[in-house]
Amino acid sequence: MEEAKGVVKHVLIAKFKEEIPPDQVEKLIKGYANLVTLIEPMKDFHWGTDVSSENLHQGFTHVFESTFESTEGVAEYLGHPAHVEFANLFIPSLEKVIVIDYKPTIVLHH
Amino acid sequence: MEEAKGVVKHVLIAKFKEEIPPDQVEKLIKGYANLVTLIEPMKDFHWGTDVSSENLHQGFTHVFESTFESTEGVAEYLGHPAHVEFANLFIPSLEKVIVIDYKPTIVLHH
Repeated sequence: MEEAKGVVKHVLIAKFKEEIPPDQVEKLIKGYANLVTLIEPMKDFHWGTDVSSENLHQGFTHVFESTFESTEGVAEYLGHPAHVEFANLFIPSLEKVIVIDYKPTIVLHH
Repeated sequence: MEEAKGVVKHVLIAKFKEEIPPDQVEKLIKGYANLVTLIEPMKDFHWGTDVSSENLHQGFTHVFESTFESTEGVAEYLGHPAHVEFANLFIPSLEKVIVIDYKPTIVLHH
């Protein structure tokens, strides 16, 4: 089997359930961000809320994007006890979620 | 009104229609990437196909992420003739699409 090489972006888009209060949403986001300090292969974490104007967000409100050195790094993250504990709180708080990983091909402005 | 400041990430996740042949998909992706050279406020473009293992991708297969200096930059992009022409080819080729823009809060590994 060919070994997976290269940076992997792990993109999660979500909509929290209506009944989750804002302070609980904030706590969950802090918990997600805190995984960066706990899980070695997780290199960075970006998050934000929808500011789009095209009305193609399909009701999703939050984006979370983390970077890993490899697909093996993502696998290590997914199996890490800190991630498992967090996911058990986070996933049930979501009305809907999409998770997609990709190895970015990058084109810069020139 | 407060002026929007700071980098904006424009994330599009998509599934192409079954009937779109691979060479046409490739052509559309090249067309998307080419917008970086045509539209000033579009600072970079990342794309890739799903390599996730969690089976939460909900059938989506492609991620396209571009970076802008501001929400005004995104608006300029959306209205740019090169984007309009491209979108008129691209959007009808998609079975489903989500577009979400966010201003990333960034946490680095430490």
